[in-house]
Amino acid sequence: MKFLAEINVMPQKEILDPQGKAVLIGLQNLGINQVAGVRIGKHITLTVDAASEAEANEVVTNACKKLLANLIMEEFEFTLTAQ
Amino acid sequence: MKFLAEINVMPQKEILDPQGKAVLIGLQNLGINQVAGVRIGKHITLTVDAASEAEANEVVTNACKKLLANLIMEEFEFTLTAQ
Repeated sequence: MKFLAEINVMPQKEILDPQGKAVLIGLQNLGINQVAGVRIGKHITLTVDAASEAEANEVVTNACKKLLANLIMEEFEFTLTAQ
Repeated sequence: MKFLAEINVMPQKEILDPQGKAVLIGLQNLGINQVAGVRIGKHITLTVDAASEAEANEVVTNACKKLLANLIMEEFEFTLTAQ
């Protein structure tokens, strides 16, 4: 079975996000003043071949921990959809 | 009212994603062979102050078009949640 994994990797809440801060200032310079906070991370989609959703879950968790997210500074979450 | 906007900015489907290709090779080098395709974009969360969901929608669309997404190469989608 094929699964589509949609992963979000975001800086941990306690950690400053200088990229988000820069974008916030950029938005204000463009006159968009209704935005109060910005945080920026990565959105990654994986196509996974796996026998079951449990196996796909394991593959994606493994990929996030080993390569996609730096767990010291980032956290990840994902959803799986069968295709 | 405060709204949380969760925005995904992804490379358009027709466009090559060299970062995704590099990550796919990286996953294979780690022995994770169940993954067939990788695409990488940005995940951005905005906190928006707006009188209504329609206004928040307009603010976020404007921010995406003017700053967050390069519409020549990228596409964006977002969800709004009242807080």
